Amino acid sequence: MKLEVLHGPNLNLLGSREPEVYGRAGLEDVNDAIRGLADELGVTIGIFQSNHEGELIDRIHAVAGEVDGFVVNAGGFTHTSVALRDALQGVGRPFVEAHLSNVHAREPFRRESLLAPVAVGSVVGFGTDSYLLAVRGLVRHLKQ
Amino acid sequence: MKLEVLHGPNLNLLGSREPEVYGRAGLEDVNDAIRGLADELGVTIGIFQSNHEGELIDRIHAVAGEVDGFVVNAGGFTHTSVALRDALQGVGRPFVEAHLSNVHAREPFRRESLLAPVAVGSVVGFGTDSYLLAVRGLVRHLKQ
Amino acid sequence: MKLEVLHGPNLNLLGSREPEVYGRAGLEDVNDAIRGLADELGVTIGIFQSNHEGELIDRIHAVAGEVDGFVVNAGGFTHTSVALRDALQGVGRPFVEAHLSNVHAREPFRRESLLAPVAVGSVVGFGTDSYLLAVRGLVRHLKQ
Amino acid sequence: MKLEVLHGPNLNLLGSREPEVYGRAGLEDVNDAIRGLADELGVTIGIFQSNHEGELIDRIHAVAGEVDGFVVNAGGFTHTSVALRDALQGVGRPFVEAHLSNVHAREPFRRESLLAPVAVGSVVGFGTDSYLLAVRGLVRHLKQ
Amino acid sequence: MKLEVLHGPNLNLLGSREPEVYGRAGLEDVNDAIRGLADELGVTIGIFQSNHEGELIDRIHAVAGEVDGFVVNAGGFTHTSVALRDALQGVGRPFVEAHLSNVHAREPFRRESLLAPVAVGSVVGFGTDSYLLAVRGLVRHLKQ
Amino acid sequence: MKLEVLHGPNLNLLGSREPEVYGRAGLEDVNDAIRGLADELGVTIGIFQSNHEGELIDRIHAVAGEVDGFVVNAGGFTHTSVALRDALQGVGRPFVEAHLSNVHAREPFRRESLLAPVAVGSVVGFGTDSYLLAVRGLVRHLKQ
Amino acid sequence: MKLEVLHGPNLNLLGSREPEVYGRAGLEDVNDAIRGLADELGVTIGIFQSNHEGELIDRIHAVAGEVDGFVVNAGGFTHTSVALRDALQGVGRPFVEAHLSNVHAREPFRRESLLAPVAVGSVVGFGTDSYLLAVRGLVRHLKQ
Amino acid sequence: MKLEVLHGPNLNLLGSREPEVYGRAGLEDVNDAIRGLADELGVTIGIFQSNHEGELIDRIHAVAGEVDGFVVNAGGFTHTSVALRDALQGVGRPFVEAHLSNVHAREPFRRESLLAPVAVGSVVGFGTDSYLLAVRGLVRHLKQ
Amino acid sequence: MKLEVLHGPNLNLLGSREPEVYGRAGLEDVNDAIRGLADELGVTIGIFQSNHEGELIDRIHAVAGEVDGFVVNAGGFTHTSVALRDALQGVGRPFVEAHLSNVHAREPFRRESLLAPVAVGSVVGFGTDSYLLAVRGLVRHLKQ
Amino acid sequence: MKLEVLHGPNLNLLGSREPEVYGRAGLEDVNDAIRGLADELGVTIGIFQSNHEGELIDRIHAVAGEVDGFVVNAGGFTHTSVALRDALQGVGRPFVEAHLSNVHAREPFRRESLLAPVAVGSVVGFGTDSYLLAVRGLVRHLKQ
Amino acid sequence: MKLEVLHGPNLNLLGSREPEVYGRAGLEDVNDAIRGLADELGVTIGIFQSNHEGELIDRIHAVAGEVDGFVVNAGGFTHTSVALRDALQGVGRPFVEAHLSNVHAREPFRRESLLAPVAVGSVVGFGTDSYLLAVRGLVRHLKQ
Amino acid sequence: MKLEVLHGPNLNLLGSREPEVYGRAGLEDVNDAIRGLADELGVTIGIFQSNHEGELIDRIHAVAGEVDGFVVNAGGFTHTSVALRDALQGVGRPFVEAHLSNVHAREPFRRESLLAPVAVGSVVGFGTDSYLLAVRGLVRHLKQ
Repeated sequence: MKLEVLHGPNLNLLGSREPEVYGRAGLEDVNDAIRGLADELGVTIGIFQSNHEGELIDRIHAVAGEVDGFVVNAGGFTHTSVALRDALQGVGRPFVEAHLSNVHAREPFRRESLLAPVAVGSVVGFGTDSYLLAVRGLVRHLKQ
Repeated sequence: MKLEVLHGPNLNLLGSREPEVYGRAGLEDVNDAIRGLADELGVTIGIFQSNHEGELIDRIHAVAGEVDGFVVNAGGFTHTSVALRDALQGVGRPFVEAHLSNVHAREPFRRESLLAPVAVGSVVGFGTDSYLLAVRGLVRHLKQ
Repeated sequence: MKLEVLHGPNLNLLGSREPEVYGRAGLEDVNDAIRGLADELGVTIGIFQSNHEGELIDRIHAVAGEVDGFVVNAGGFTHTSVALRDALQGVGRPFVEAHLSNVHAREPFRRESLLAPVAVGSVVGFGTDSYLLAVRGLVRHLKQ
Repeated sequence: MKLEVLHGPNLNLLGSREPEVYGRAGLEDVNDAIRGLADELGVTIGIFQSNHEGELIDRIHAVAGEVDGFVVNAGGFTHTSVALRDALQGVGRPFVEAHLSNVHAREPFRRESLLAPVAVGSVVGFGTDSYLLAVRGLVRHLKQ
Repeated sequence: MKLEVLHGPNLNLLGSREPEVYGRAGLEDVNDAIRGLADELGVTIGIFQSNHEGELIDRIHAVAGEVDGFVVNAGGFTHTSVALRDALQGVGRPFVEAHLSNVHAREPFRRESLLAPVAVGSVVGFGTDSYLLAVRGLVRHLKQ
Repeated sequence: MKLEVLHGPNLNLLGSREPEVYGRAGLEDVNDAIRGLADELGVTIGIFQSNHEGELIDRIHAVAGEVDGFVVNAGGFTHTSVALRDALQGVGRPFVEAHLSNVHAREPFRRESLLAPVAVGSVVGFGTDSYLLAVRGLVRHLKQ
Repeated sequence: MKLEVLHGPNLNLLGSREPEVYGRAGLEDVNDAIRGLADELGVTIGIFQSNHEGELIDRIHAVAGEVDGFVVNAGGFTHTSVALRDALQGVGRPFVEAHLSNVHAREPFRRESLLAPVAVGSVVGFGTDSYLLAVRGLVRHLKQ
Repeated sequence: MKLEVLHGPNLNLLGSREPEVYGRAGLEDVNDAIRGLADELGVTIGIFQSNHEGELIDRIHAVAGEVDGFVVNAGGFTHTSVALRDALQGVGRPFVEAHLSNVHAREPFRRESLLAPVAVGSVVGFGTDSYLLAVRGLVRHLKQ
Repeated sequence: MKLEVLHGPNLNLLGSREPEVYGRAGLEDVNDAIRGLADELGVTIGIFQSNHEGELIDRIHAVAGEVDGFVVNAGGFTHTSVALRDALQGVGRPFVEAHLSNVHAREPFRRESLLAPVAVGSVVGFGTDSYLLAVRGLVRHLKQ
Repeated sequence: MKLEVLHGPNLNLLGSREPEVYGRAGLEDVNDAIRGLADELGVTIGIFQSNHEGELIDRIHAVAGEVDGFVVNAGGFTHTSVALRDALQGVGRPFVEAHLSNVHAREPFRRESLLAPVAVGSVVGFGTDSYLLAVRGLVRHLKQ
Repeated sequence: MKLEVLHGPNLNLLGSREPEVYGRAGLEDVNDAIRGLADELGVTIGIFQSNHEGELIDRIHAVAGEVDGFVVNAGGFTHTSVALRDALQGVGRPFVEAHLSNVHAREPFRRESLLAPVAVGSVVGFGTDSYLLAVRGLVRHLKQ
Repeated sequence: MKLEVLHGPNLNLLGSREPEVYGRAGLEDVNDAIRGLADELGVTIGIFQSNHEGELIDRIHAVAGEVDGFVVNAGGFTHTSVALRDALQGVGRPFVEAHLSNVHAREPFRRESLLAPVAVGSVVGFGTDSYLLAVRGLVRHLKQ
């Protein structure tokens, strides 16, 4: 089983950006934890970060043929990108939405996700653990 | 560490109610899996189900003094019960919201959760695995 | 054929509550008329009233296995109870919505019914005759 | 007692139009059933169908002096015709709204009826039985 | 100068329909008063009433070439007929909107007029005097 | 019979303010025309202009005891002043709303009048003739 | 004169729940103060608390025949319970709404009260003094 | 293959009505161009224009049995006629929506089409060429 | 302790304006009752009425330095005056909102108060007793 | 070149009102800074402050003939005064809107300005520097 | 005459992405058909696809000087990109909007196009034929 | 002190794009003026333009460590880019929003800025002078 984890815009700032909201672990720490869990679960993981909507879409197209599903934290694109939704839906692979912070407890515009209605499910609010829970959830989903 | 899992209305129907949406495992199967995970994680679990909003509130009040947090699948009350939100917020214990189905992919009124803004986070769409991921997430949150 | 008639909150006040809106017949008068019609149509009728949302849900679960359908006047819960909707939809029995008064001619919040979209149909505005027409309609529906 | 049944636009298609939604009985079958029930209840029935809003209004004006009430299935005009509402309200005769399909379970614009707030009541969702229940309800209402 | 007065749906009921709202004068009384004022002002008046939106549109097309303006009481079509608006705007003649009752003091849907934004102006709430004031206003407007 | 004409804010600019919208007649010209019509109709007219909401309210209170009705062009206060509405409604005298321009053809916020629902009626869009038509309409209304 | 004070959900937590919002007095302290004021005013007071909407409705039905009015702090049910509104309106006794905190200064959903439009009046924001002011207000209202 | 082109209200004014919006070709010119293209494409064309919603519905019913599809420019009915939508959907023939002007660049109410969601597709903004493109598109669609 | 009571627009009409809504006591009667209660409670009271928003603001500025709080019935300004809200918030003195009538049972625009979110609390619906309860509430609040 | 700076309601409190929002400089300090900049830029400045909407309107009318433009901080009137907008637009002089605080970061009702759509532009959020930037911007605009 | 066809995000998936919605032809097939039609019509065609909003904007800027118009299928950007709208409007070349699927029959967010109000017109719902019809329509438009 | 000026999409068209809206100065002219002012104020300026949202985000990340603040004209991204808002907020540097045109006087979607609520302030409507005023304002802000 092969999964792709996609980090959207500003997640490269992890650890330095508003640590009281997003925690102090940097993106590499997070990726290491994801890879560690992947090893434990016996799955292969690809990881990609970009601040460019187009690069995320290109990446989805490029790897869709070889992965079984996606874990996506689309950051700000979550609420604004129909194109990203179309990309994920278009390649026909299941995906799980993950968010570090509890988006439901923040500005109203963060309560609407364009991705959620076409996702398998979502995990939000557990800081960097959201990724790990999302990976677990997706793996279980794919094994059903 | 002690957690309380709350099942809201109609979850006693699990396994018989719309199995194409909610899966075929019965509530006892789910509870067994939760207890199994609790053992694995070394935490104590209480479990309570009710179709009565008032009984869920009473339960929250009754056990709040002895638990460290809640995992709550409030079913239909998720979208309509300010009283349940007030109960959870009022007792001052962190809680995680869990849903079997992807509520964001269903009727519009299921996209609004009164509980989410005062929760630690939420896990939705993984069928009965949602409970297990929520327990994991809450335990991690409490250990921070 | 067996039907269950569910009376929601405040219907026990029938005859005394705002008689200019709801008429002067008491709940027992209504129930007698329903039972009379049931005899005429050759169907068995169960009747249950409660002011507790949870008791109505419990009742639906309890009798669903032995009835062919429900006639439901959920009173104020009509506009607020996702849990009741889920219960009726969850047990997989057809139901008909009945209202004594013309809910469309009253406060705006009474124009939205959470039950209507998952019901077979509805009968509103005929006073206590609404129940009788609803029973007739449900029986015809079940015989198709 | 004399009643007028008004069939609005496209009801002449009954039996051929989307039979999975509206059933297979043709308009004449429906009218026969209505007339049969009228005989049973000892009331006189007039029946009129038109796809023209203006003809329906003219008809209401023309017969209002000689009928005791109307049963109206205004079809698509239900949601758009203030003029029809004004006609029914203007002639000062009680009327009952009937719909074949459960309008609450279809497109959002079908949930708003301009007629309902000035009707005695409504019967929706019972296929062609909706007319029969509406006639019964109106007769009972007029006899009070 | 030649004007056309258009009476929309249900205005033929004038005098009998809800006299407490619309007054007791019949349509012919109103027309006589309009003609009397026209004589006084030295203008020619055509008058047309229909309950059919299409006939009103046909009439507008037919007489537009020979009249200098319209006084329009479109009744219920005021709030629903884009086609009537397009007809009046399309023939390029100024028109004044008139209403017997104060539409702003009634149901919310009567507060929106599709005609008003393309009219010269409007006169509402003076009973049958609304027509007379509208004629005066239009004549003054045309003489400027 | 005695009437009071109230001119609201910026009407003192008449003739100089946006003449393509409001015409070229100054406020004194308008007042002269109003007085001329009053003489013709045999009614007494008081006239008051202010840019101060409070002064308009004070004026309404002061003269209400001696006038039979008001003609009010509240200008910008039309859309924002609950206090003015309360004053007019509070003194219990009928009033007619007048506007120079067709408020329905301008910015959306000008389509809502707080005064209209408690007025006898309104005359809009006839330039300074709106006052004259409003006076005529009010006089006719008071004579009924 | 006899009054009934109804405490809705979570008010049993008073003193322990979010004391910075709701103050430090426990429910018994509040009840003592209410009883003290009742003595001073020479009225009899019944007091009832429940976290169950149905029990509050049952209570209203049960005591309505023997009380002159209600003071109601419905807590979270204020914003969601049509059934409670119907119960209070149905028994035909005047009631006053009370809230500890200033509901207008909190989450938007707390600004809408289903009870307020059918209440005599409301007192909000004075902490536990809200009950005392409400009792005073209701007594004065009943003595008029 | 046989197609029916339906022209809705005011299209008989083509060439004289607001030529800067709708162009200078008259309806007969347009019909000639349509017939010319039909010849070129080897399809039979019927053409019908009416300002009466009811006549358009009658026409759809009458010809549906013998045509393969419709090209519909419903003019103002586009935004207001549920009955027309029901007629087109009810007869079960594919249809294409056509508009002369770019409805998306005009008043907000022209941006909503009741027909579009049940059409094959739409062509808007090309003046009378919209019809020709719509015919081409429908023919291609029917040949698939 | 010194308090200032502010009466907004039209309250000088008290006793004559719509007595069925506002009662028959005149403003001086109300002021006497307020002063009587102030004596009883041992506080000093200033009272000010104006129909001018600006005068109310000026008054707030002028007396803020010497009073401990305000009781404000801003009448129609309640729903429209950001400036008044800013004045009360700007001078940093607590205030209580009072209304004679139950604003929640009247027109929808009266349900929104711009003052409420920055007030200590509010008392509405007790007629002129609202002022007395508000004074009591404010005194208690200031003594805490 | 001559400019008029208008300070709206509560700006006389500058320095004492919520200094954490509006800063500690008093209105005279601000006016001195404005006059200093005017000297530097070689323009003449008039300055006027009022808490009365009507006085601001009167002032605009009075000075419009002799100034080239306005800098306006209308305070709370920004969001509620159509009359002020009409005054500024009516006198035909360009104006710039200025706000001390960042209105977009505060309550939602502060995000709507009735003045902005008819202004040259706006400067918000720079504390008392907003006036200075606005003066600079207006001078540059007038010199183009 | 030279045209540029712009394919937005995910259109490179054509043929593989949801073929039941978008058809089975690949992007190159579509481009060949476009080029074939261009030859037939004697116009030159450039074609560009990108999943990057910025690249589409850069392309519009780069080619605008040498093309006469654009055919744009902006995919998901249609509903979210003000920047793309500004680019197309900014370069001053007419463009036609094209969509493969009938966007009006899908999710509500697809019914709003930011491009449509500044386009010449649009063609939607004809699968890959939409491009061909759009090219025809644009060529005709440019030749007028 | 070092500032970064960010020009968003389509600003490279300055001087050629809709000059009646945006003026005739090209981007290099604007940049020269900005640099000139920077020299005058003794601050260092970096300038960056891109039509790619991702490049703007990358740039913010890249330079945030070395600049004291940003002046941002995000063009169309202003209204649609949560990611850009997150980037600016994430790097923790103050920024000022600038717009050439008066966005409040254009299409409704331009009145909402996602950036404004997290900015220091904004300057809009002064053409290219908006940048200069924004630089001045930011420098003053940073010096406080």
